[in-house]
Amino acid sequence: MNLITQAGSEVTDTPADAASAEVSPVDASSTYIDLPLDERVSLLNAYQHIRAETEKLTDPLSAEDMQLQSMPDASPTKWHLAHTSWFFETFILQRYQPGYRLFDAEFHHLFNSYYNSLGQPFSRPQRGLLSRPDIDQVYDYRRHVDRAIEQLLTEGDCPAEIAALITLGGNHEQQHQELLLTDIQHAFSCNPLLPAYSDTQNDGEPLSETTALNWLRVPEDTYTVGGDGTAFQYGTDFQYDNEGPPHQQYLRECRVASRLITNREFLEFIQEGGYQEPRLWLSDGWAWVRSNNIHAPLYWQQREGEWYQFTLSGLHPLELDAPVSHVNFYEADAFASWAGMRLPTEFEWEVAAWLHRQPDTLADANMLEKRLYQATAECSGKPQFLGNLWEWTGSAYLPYPGFRASADAVGEYNGKFMCNQMVLRGGSCVTPASHIRISYRNFFYPHQAWQFTGIRLAGDPD
Amino acid sequence: MNLITQAGSEVTDTPADAASAEVSPVDASSTYIDLPLDERVSLLNAYQHIRAETEKLTDPLSAEDMQLQSMPDASPTKWHLAHTSWFFETFILQRYQPGYRLFDAEFHHLFNSYYNSLGQPFSRPQRGLLSRPDIDQVYDYRRHVDRAIEQLLTEGDCPAEIAALITLGGNHEQQHQELLLTDIQHAFSCNPLLPAYSDTQNDGEPLSETTALNWLRVPEDTYTVGGDGTAFQYGTDFQYDNEGPPHQQYLRECRVASRLITNREFLEFIQEGGYQEPRLWLSDGWAWVRSNNIHAPLYWQQREGEWYQFTLSGLHPLELDAPVSHVNFYEADAFASWAGMRLPTEFEWEVAAWLHRQPDTLADANMLEKRLYQATAECSGKPQFLGNLWEWTGSAYLPYPGFRASADAVGEYNGKFMCNQMVLRGGSCVTPASHIRISYRNFFYPHQAWQFTGIRLAGDPD
Amino acid sequence: MNLITQAGSEVTDTPADAASAEVSPVDASSTYIDLPLDERVSLLNAYQHIRAETEKLTDPLSAEDMQLQSMPDASPTKWHLAHTSWFFETFILQRYQPGYRLFDAEFHHLFNSYYNSLGQPFSRPQRGLLSRPDIDQVYDYRRHVDRAIEQLLTEGDCPAEIAALITLGGNHEQQHQELLLTDIQHAFSCNPLLPAYSDTQNDGEPLSETTALNWLRVPEDTYTVGGDGTAFQYGTDFQYDNEGPPHQQYLRECRVASRLITNREFLEFIQEGGYQEPRLWLSDGWAWVRSNNIHAPLYWQQREGEWYQFTLSGLHPLELDAPVSHVNFYEADAFASWAGMRLPTEFEWEVAAWLHRQPDTLADANMLEKRLYQATAECSGKPQFLGNLWEWTGSAYLPYPGFRASADAVGEYNGKFMCNQMVLRGGSCVTPASHIRISYRNFFYPHQAWQFTGIRLAGDPD
Amino acid sequence: MNLITQAGSEVTDTPADAASAEVSPVDASSTYIDLPLDERVSLLNAYQHIRAETEKLTDPLSAEDMQLQSMPDASPTKWHLAHTSWFFETFILQRYQPGYRLFDAEFHHLFNSYYNSLGQPFSRPQRGLLSRPDIDQVYDYRRHVDRAIEQLLTEGDCPAEIAALITLGGNHEQQHQELLLTDIQHAFSCNPLLPAYSDTQNDGEPLSETTALNWLRVPEDTYTVGGDGTAFQYGTDFQYDNEGPPHQQYLRECRVASRLITNREFLEFIQEGGYQEPRLWLSDGWAWVRSNNIHAPLYWQQREGEWYQFTLSGLHPLELDAPVSHVNFYEADAFASWAGMRLPTEFEWEVAAWLHRQPDTLADANMLEKRLYQATAECSGKPQFLGNLWEWTGSAYLPYPGFRASADAVGEYNGKFMCNQMVLRGGSCVTPASHIRISYRNFFYPHQAWQFTGIRLAGDPD
Repeated sequence: MNLITQAGSEVTDTPADAASAEVSPVDASSTYIDLPLDERVSLLNAYQHIRAETEKLTDPLSAEDMQLQSMPDASPTKWHLAHTSWFFETFILQRYQPGYRLFDAEFHHLFNSYYNSLGQPFSRPQRGLLSRPDIDQVYDYRRHVDRAIEQLLTEGDCPAEIAALITLGGNHEQQHQELLLTDIQHAFSCNPLLPAYSDTQNDGEPLSETTALNWLRVPEDTYTVGGDGTAFQYGTDFQYDNEGPPHQQYLRECRVASRLITNREFLEFIQEGGYQEPRLWLSDGWAWVRSNNIHAPLYWQQREGEWYQFTLSGLHPLELDAPVSHVNFYEADAFASWAGMRLPTEFEWEVAAWLHRQPDTLADANMLEKRLYQATAECSGKPQFLGNLWEWTGSAYLPYPGFRASADAVGEYNGKFMCNQMVLRGGSCVTPASHIRISYRNFFYPHQAWQFTGIRLAGDPD
Repeated sequence: MNLITQAGSEVTDTPADAASAEVSPVDASSTYIDLPLDERVSLLNAYQHIRAETEKLTDPLSAEDMQLQSMPDASPTKWHLAHTSWFFETFILQRYQPGYRLFDAEFHHLFNSYYNSLGQPFSRPQRGLLSRPDIDQVYDYRRHVDRAIEQLLTEGDCPAEIAALITLGGNHEQQHQELLLTDIQHAFSCNPLLPAYSDTQNDGEPLSETTALNWLRVPEDTYTVGGDGTAFQYGTDFQYDNEGPPHQQYLRECRVASRLITNREFLEFIQEGGYQEPRLWLSDGWAWVRSNNIHAPLYWQQREGEWYQFTLSGLHPLELDAPVSHVNFYEADAFASWAGMRLPTEFEWEVAAWLHRQPDTLADANMLEKRLYQATAECSGKPQFLGNLWEWTGSAYLPYPGFRASADAVGEYNGKFMCNQMVLRGGSCVTPASHIRISYRNFFYPHQAWQFTGIRLAGDPD
Repeated sequence: MNLITQAGSEVTDTPADAASAEVSPVDASSTYIDLPLDERVSLLNAYQHIRAETEKLTDPLSAEDMQLQSMPDASPTKWHLAHTSWFFETFILQRYQPGYRLFDAEFHHLFNSYYNSLGQPFSRPQRGLLSRPDIDQVYDYRRHVDRAIEQLLTEGDCPAEIAALITLGGNHEQQHQELLLTDIQHAFSCNPLLPAYSDTQNDGEPLSETTALNWLRVPEDTYTVGGDGTAFQYGTDFQYDNEGPPHQQYLRECRVASRLITNREFLEFIQEGGYQEPRLWLSDGWAWVRSNNIHAPLYWQQREGEWYQFTLSGLHPLELDAPVSHVNFYEADAFASWAGMRLPTEFEWEVAAWLHRQPDTLADANMLEKRLYQATAECSGKPQFLGNLWEWTGSAYLPYPGFRASADAVGEYNGKFMCNQMVLRGGSCVTPASHIRISYRNFFYPHQAWQFTGIRLAGDPD
Repeated sequence: MNLITQAGSEVTDTPADAASAEVSPVDASSTYIDLPLDERVSLLNAYQHIRAETEKLTDPLSAEDMQLQSMPDASPTKWHLAHTSWFFETFILQRYQPGYRLFDAEFHHLFNSYYNSLGQPFSRPQRGLLSRPDIDQVYDYRRHVDRAIEQLLTEGDCPAEIAALITLGGNHEQQHQELLLTDIQHAFSCNPLLPAYSDTQNDGEPLSETTALNWLRVPEDTYTVGGDGTAFQYGTDFQYDNEGPPHQQYLRECRVASRLITNREFLEFIQEGGYQEPRLWLSDGWAWVRSNNIHAPLYWQQREGEWYQFTLSGLHPLELDAPVSHVNFYEADAFASWAGMRLPTEFEWEVAAWLHRQPDTLADANMLEKRLYQATAECSGKPQFLGNLWEWTGSAYLPYPGFRASADAVGEYNGKFMCNQMVLRGGSCVTPASHIRISYRNFFYPHQAWQFTGIRLAGDPD
């Protein structure tokens, strides 16, 4: 089973421009522009594809599985299914669909994630207590929203401005596809039975890094970084507001590793006492190690002297050539210190990824139909920055120069998290392929490790 | 719907004597005594009846509902279903059924509640994370155990000593029937949709107290208290080890209220500032009020000036004549202080209940077929101590003189909780009728309120 | 140095009767009775003696030491000095001393311990933050109160009812003398320098138990227990409200140990794995062991294989014959289980102490001038229940039948703590001798161990 | 009283170059270079001056005051006095003073702040429990270290490399001078008596901002930022490792406020509901507001409708023209959002401060003898970036390109905190003047407000 199959090429045709994606209440005085028919078709195809992908991910799960919430950071599968529908209902249907009937008025509160401007959201750590609505009602909710979106795109007037919002909603749902998988993996890891999400070993796991680690040179220069649809874009025009504006960044010469750190290399760190040596750790990282008594990455287990890793396909002996995954920022930083290196900044990473991109994979417009790493696997030995693991950078998640969040509720999407978190780049093996691009800025708190996160080293010139 | 229908009269015929119920590993040297056939039949009937009652309680629940755990004190329905089966498997089948095959070896760990002598139990606050085994597997587990018990009681040799253990297992399961209901009520109360367990209002609710509050006199004397099958026994011979040994207790003259405190009376306490007046509260109780910002009983809600109560049948306007329920010990004690009275000790309660028992209800051997309170309702105006709410007493839960817990694992049943908890007496409207008796000692921590708990006042002579 | 020298015999002459010690606002309509002169003299002597004793205890302490608060349960020495003065100021001087001028109006709030009826007390865990008033001001406060009490007792009218209150204040201050010592010991134990309060080894430590452990028989009977000035009184008429009323208690025959458990015996419990065996522990006790990773009593330390104990005179090798001290109720109960015995109830303890009291020590009216255990030490080999360690009983701290707390603020003294705590009996080596009596009911939470607490076993007849 | 008088001009003559301040174990094989006599004299003068300044700060404090620790983030005055001495003892005397005798071997553990490579430091939240050593012993410790440093600098050989370490130790002590004041202010704020550290109102308070807020333009350019002794240096050559290396930074055009935000302006934010409007806050900031129920800055109090502020000189009516102080990053960011602006990045701040520096104040070599703000006050109306309040920037505290911490224990000084904290710039009214420079990077967690922190706005061009 392939956990996430690919979004149709329609997505790449979507002309939505998030740089102008400011969502405002409908303003009657503004000049009305109708969405052209071909764009409607394209949007609807992309919408239906993504919605179907989400539901395909629930195939291996029972109603009880979909109820699980194993920690406040994670959400139940059922909640992901409902919340992604709530997003379309709240930001599109309630505004643009005349006479739209809410599926259930109480869902407005229950499935709001964190949009405080829309009212106090339901307590996040208690999402696992919502046995009602049951899973069938949530699927009905999805159908209800799907039909309304279809109607909106196929019948009568359809203002052009909703294209950007529907595209945003699709990307939002793709983010939740990945979270759905990482959250269920965490929930299953808490069950002593260690159930497998997938029957196929290596399904949902990063590709092994079998090549020698080389250093890619990034020459000193002033670069334009950040996404704007021209520079560093990657096959689709959509981007989040936090990826821009594009701006100039002076970089000193540096070198960036050609591949991720492997389990074998991380095991060496452990065996040399990495988790016992305070000098390798940031102060907050060392406090985390001590107060949680950490000795290995999140999903590693030692049984009778042998190391195992819990994965989406269950517990397996640790694959030494696989990239070390589910490490947090503190572990990534400590490993880099131990190796005498450091993590790349997000701009070093972005420039390196651009300079060393694989032209043959990009050349094929259809590549987005496939898992990116599969494409890359064919050109083995070449540096690969995309689609294996989210890579911790040394950059704090902060606004780019000139960034302004939308004044609309949608403006709560990215900007308000710009504090205390670190940037990750590259996309993982469970990120939908059409959702991956060089300019993409993911972000998590430094202590969090339940995502598919890995380590790429960098350093100053020799 | 009647939440808990009645155990058959077979139960009352069971000759199990818990006073001699010490469970020991099978001792080959002891003289073997086979269980007589009529007792086998009686035991099996009672077993099957109780097992069926438990499952009937799950009728209104979905697989998702049965997964819920809303706080560490509570357990998921599914866990109750499995744990009660684990009890029979562990304490009876593994010992007495030759060649018994465990349904699943891992369940031994997963569904052990707190028997530390059988290995470290699975973390209690994480029971809600066990989506696997799923509910169908848990029902299969129940069937597997049921078949083995039936086989044990109907085929070949059957040592007499298991009668006591099977009776204990049945009583244990009846306790979990009540917990199943109180736990699901708490879980539903956390859902803003406030789902109802039952469609029928007043189902699973205590009977109203419509009579005037009178004072029942308990004369000074030395009484024999505690259950032993002769004194203060109530229609069935089974009792828990903590109900004995019977012993003498000198009581001063006192008076005990003829009925429970009503919502109307408790509302007066609130309106007179009861939750704001520290002098009414025990020191720990006042700390609880302050740190949790308490203003009313657990399931009360005020909406636009009107009081409502969340019940097993959903949210309803507060019934003023109903006994106040789901109060904790601190609230019960503070109310008593406010009223210028106190709570009865468990012995005052026991003697009052015995002296003022309803002979006509007891005379009928079939009374245990019905809800006790229904029987009593017919003799309205008469004092009723049994089957409406668990009544907080002023007695700490401690061993009776001469109490010794079994050295066996079953010895962890009651004795190890004899610290920090208070005794409750009387049984509630969701206690199985055959499980109610005057000598029964229930116990909870003083801050806990999610059980069906109420207030009966007592005082010294005028 | 003798930590607490003895109160003068004047105390024993005090006719204060706490059974009638209800403190009410001055009632002009009641008949005024003046306190006779000889009683005034006697009261003043006792007052001055106790006040001086308190201050003597601070001799070894610096201003910084007196500022320490090492946990919320403990208070700084300076706070004890001020609070005991606050007690006299609040309950006596403000009511009975015409024109009394408060030393500082803000102290009313700062040095109120827990009398909620007198306004919200200052946050207990923050007492260590009160560097102001400084220690000199606190001594000035004491002088101010002392002068006013002297004036009250020597000049003009003096209502007879204040005798009971001044006696209560003296006893209250004696309680704080002991707390002052246990609190400073705990604070010093947190300092890696392990400073000694006293230079003299064994100062402030319990006497060793060098005799064999015998069993004292308590015959079955109905006893009158509780203090009332006639039965079980012990050389002084004062008692707290919680020691009465006297009441009848039926006791089965039992046996009570002739001495306390020694460090040698407790070490055996440890070496046989007592802290690792859940079956020995109450459920809450086992949770305490596990979550705090407990391996030995509070003040024990193991250094290079040898056991040491931190005492008021510093760190010393564990004295094997000394009674084990600073154990909590859970440890006491687990040790008793391991020994196949149990703890005595408070009534078994009281009757045993009375039946086996040492007549020769009681015969001497001057015995109260000395440390009780010194008196007893002379009659070595005889059972000794008083003045070595507070002895955990198996009784929860609850009101005696007929107990009613005063409606006055003084009524918050004892009654509101009657929940969640266990009774200790006997008095310790740092309890002022005149404060020790058989009927005395001390109480602490089962997890607390920083008092001078020990273990006496009991059991049913052989 | 002037809280912190100025370091002598000797400090400015100190040739210590922290850029080469890497501290290594003494390497016998390296070529020995003796420290020239004039540099020895200069170093000693500076050392003695700083040490005396520290002790002058303790003049208003009692031994009890110096014991206070009001939260884990803060330390007792006594601990500051000892720890700064420990720094000289550990990093200089133990290495370079032949035959140096430790004052007390246990102090190595007690007064280590966070240098894990030197052994596990004493638990930070328990520093307030160290009543021993007492304050006199700590002063003796200081004398002991002072004499040894004097000896080292005046007798026999003195390797040149210690100049950098002594300068570092002096700067380290200056940091603790400021912390000493902020920590005692916090401790005093917890005492309901609200004691004043200083008798003189406005002592230790920022200067008022009486001018209109203008916008200073920072033109687009690539700037060299970071300290290196030539660019942006400010009257002294010392700098911390985290201020460099100097590097190029491209800046878009922006504008920076000419002064800090005042209490008047912040009050307007409050009155317009700033603390109730989630859209103004970062996500973590809103969580902080909600879970701590925040309504105003840390030291503001409302009494009978009037606002007061607790300061080092006690409680005073809020000065509306004073800059708002003791706000945390979340509050600064929310205020900026409310004002439609943002905070400057640390580079925008640095360039603006450089471009708009006051030449006349800089021209005078003696300016460092005075409080910087006093110097500036004379040129009122001119923009002032230094010495009033630490100004929150929008920059996370991260390493500059090319930064490498020393491999030595001293390397734990700055680098290991480069995560989760925000940069503050400018120095405050309680920062020693010689410690203030444009390149200085202070850092605190976003929730912390007990430092002298304020708000300067910035924005993109109109």
